[in-house]
Amino acid sequence: MDNIQKLIHQNQDRYINELIELLKIPSVSAEPKYKEDVLKAAEFVSEKLVAAGLDAVEICSTKGFPVVYAEKIIDSQLPTVLIYGHYDVQPADPIELWTSPPFEPVIKDGKIYARGSADDKGQFYMHVKAVELLLAENLLPCNVKFMIEGEEEVGSEHLGDFVRENKAKLSCDVILVSDTAIIANDIPSITVGLRGLSYMEVEVTGPNRDLHSGVYGGAVANPINTLCKMIAQLIDDNGHVTIDGFYDDVINLSEAERQAINSIPFSEEEYRKELNISTTQGEKGYTTIERTSTRPTLDVNGIWGGYIGEGAKTVLPSKAFAKISMRLVPNQQSEKISQLFEKHFRAIAPESVKVKVTYHHGGEPVVVPSDSKEYAAAERAMEKTFGKKPVPQRGGGSIPIVALFEEELGVKTVLMGFGLDTDDIHSPNEHYGIFNFLKGIETIPYFLKYYTEG
Amino acid sequence: MDNIQKLIHQNQDRYINELIELLKIPSVSAEPKYKEDVLKAAEFVSEKLVAAGLDAVEICSTKGFPVVYAEKIIDSQLPTVLIYGHYDVQPADPIELWTSPPFEPVIKDGKIYARGSADDKGQFYMHVKAVELLLAENLLPCNVKFMIEGEEEVGSEHLGDFVRENKAKLSCDVILVSDTAIIANDIPSITVGLRGLSYMEVEVTGPNRDLHSGVYGGAVANPINTLCKMIAQLIDDNGHVTIDGFYDDVINLSEAERQAINSIPFSEEEYRKELNISTTQGEKGYTTIERTSTRPTLDVNGIWGGYIGEGAKTVLPSKAFAKISMRLVPNQQSEKISQLFEKHFRAIAPESVKVKVTYHHGGEPVVVPSDSKEYAAAERAMEKTFGKKPVPQRGGGSIPIVALFEEELGVKTVLMGFGLDTDDIHSPNEHYGIFNFLKGIETIPYFLKYYTEG
Repeated sequence: MDNIQKLIHQNQDRYINELIELLKIPSVSAEPKYKEDVLKAAEFVSEKLVAAGLDAVEICSTKGFPVVYAEKIIDSQLPTVLIYGHYDVQPADPIELWTSPPFEPVIKDGKIYARGSADDKGQFYMHVKAVELLLAENLLPCNVKFMIEGEEEVGSEHLGDFVRENKAKLSCDVILVSDTAIIANDIPSITVGLRGLSYMEVEVTGPNRDLHSGVYGGAVANPINTLCKMIAQLIDDNGHVTIDGFYDDVINLSEAERQAINSIPFSEEEYRKELNISTTQGEKGYTTIERTSTRPTLDVNGIWGGYIGEGAKTVLPSKAFAKISMRLVPNQQSEKISQLFEKHFRAIAPESVKVKVTYHHGGEPVVVPSDSKEYAAAERAMEKTFGKKPVPQRGGGSIPIVALFEEELGVKTVLMGFGLDTDDIHSPNEHYGIFNFLKGIETIPYFLKYYTEG
Repeated sequence: MDNIQKLIHQNQDRYINELIELLKIPSVSAEPKYKEDVLKAAEFVSEKLVAAGLDAVEICSTKGFPVVYAEKIIDSQLPTVLIYGHYDVQPADPIELWTSPPFEPVIKDGKIYARGSADDKGQFYMHVKAVELLLAENLLPCNVKFMIEGEEEVGSEHLGDFVRENKAKLSCDVILVSDTAIIANDIPSITVGLRGLSYMEVEVTGPNRDLHSGVYGGAVANPINTLCKMIAQLIDDNGHVTIDGFYDDVINLSEAERQAINSIPFSEEEYRKELNISTTQGEKGYTTIERTSTRPTLDVNGIWGGYIGEGAKTVLPSKAFAKISMRLVPNQQSEKISQLFEKHFRAIAPESVKVKVTYHHGGEPVVVPSDSKEYAAAERAMEKTFGKKPVPQRGGGSIPIVALFEEELGVKTVLMGFGLDTDDIHSPNEHYGIFNFLKGIETIPYFLKYYTEG
């Protein structure tokens, strides 16, 4: 495989241009107006998998957006690695904060700027190119399967059914996912834990219609004031979530585990500086690294109600809304936490308003063992290409399908991502380093080789 | 004047059609995109004042939207009544809650549905038609002046300068305004008090950009959660506003005054039923009538931040915003309260966020004496046309210019409005009863007559 770096160098312009084509497709799964574009992205992926030399390429229908499947079985005696990724992306708003349009990729300072560049188009596409390269050179060391879905950003709603209905097709020895970050370009890391998610939407109704705040203000419960008061009550002054039972299933880490987690390279000062905040803030008694990886949290992701246009309107609105999500840690269950949230939220509502609670989507938290064959293979591969042994790291985000794969397919996942926390995924100006993109293409072949060698 | 009712009946279709034409103009002063329409409404008003037979009709420029002026001086020895109104309207959103488009007026169940129908186009236009009728019949008993402005819904920002620069032109004995409500069509009332207003906008900034709530959630202050917590702190569990010094200048009413205020016809049960709320809510120790007229309040009029589209986005946003207004009662001062708000709001902000506070507009609270010559004239006029003596009533809304007129012109205002609290002003489906529109046209001539007779 010594030739790989040279070959990547020869092909890198084509790789980048292909990724740019994919990034031009606004495959926002959350917004109905982009439906055709999401399907177009699936088409694009399937075409590229065919071009890469894979077999049995198929755009598999689900009740939602399709899953693109492909495989290359070279020898049934060899191990099979299933590569998972997603071709859908987050909504791009607030659009006005992008310095270049989200679906018109530009390269600046060695990074590709576009919605989905890091999450996850740039990352899964590394696998397509790595396997293409191995097939072209006749170097593929094992069987590979691809499962690239289109609903990750909306909770992978139909993936469970797809996996259950296609167990034979998806049978494999390990699942390889690049949808996470490394600590820095010179500090490679492998994600060994992910938080779960419960995502709720709440609606608080006061009067049956918008009212004049002068005529009614002071006598009629204002749903915005009420919602704010209810949200304020969800977290206490120590940063603890107040929902009854919220922490019941959380397993507290041992001192040794906490020490290990806190030993990864991290500068609180740089973190604050990079975010332009004068202080971090969170659950009392925990460090920033712990707060973002080993502790559950609650964040309002969106709020709206009343008059939000220019100028002033003296309205006492009928309704106020919020999107509220909770990050969960191992042993917490998304469904249970969602129910606890709803119960608590209804309980704290004053009599003067009506409350509606909707469940958006959830995902279970996971811990990935770092003493496994696949972890060892990823560690060796990264050490080979980065020249430095990667650090095991718990991530704060959620990839709900990891728990699903383990449950349905009985297979472990290895989370070998190449992004950076500063890639602004889910934010304006998302970007992905060309260094990271090419480093991924270079590393993946070694993972397959070392995993096959066992 | 015994002929008036008959003449109104003969002309009523024309009156209504003219009002409908005026209501078709979306003169929303708060939204820059309607700028041309606001100017068009000023043109319309001036044309109708000319057609009504008034002299010296002029569209007077200000630094904002113009003031339409007109006069009819029949005898300098007779008193002069200055009629004030506004041709601008509130924004129409939320548009989706209108049952018919806000600027395509429809008549349903005896009411004209359109933005501005009651506030204030339908109300000031009664005066144009009443004076037209009196001039046509040679019955005008006194001098009249019109001052119809275009910035009432955005705080009459430039009216102060206009009044100061045109004191001679505007000289008068009394100001007559129809921009308030009667208790019911069979319970006429005259407004003897209005609350003032301080309208603020706040911006809370956490991190310098939108973040992924999984990667950063738990360690970085979420500006929405923070804003909610700050808003929650503005009102305590007894419904008191917690801003330091907020109540300092409030004059507590005597028991006799409170009894008088609470003696106006009012059914708490019907009020709740009409709003579909199971309970009212407000400052402890006060009735609904007191809470909406004699007590200061604080309401969030709008809130926004993070992802507010369809579906779910796991963002920890950089910023959150709210529009917050306070209704003030006599002796409170708008500017002082705005400053107290800002000071307090900054003081309760945690170190983890940055806060920006903007002043939108304000207005001073007023009390209109009910023992004056003009009150007596309005009382007699309403008794004549409604067949029932009107009740003095304190209103909850704000007409900031009343205090301005008194200060600059040294003239009192009489608030003889004909709307209803249920007209849904500032709300979707604003409407104005044709009964009320015609009753106003009928009553105004008697006011002018009785006031002149003194």
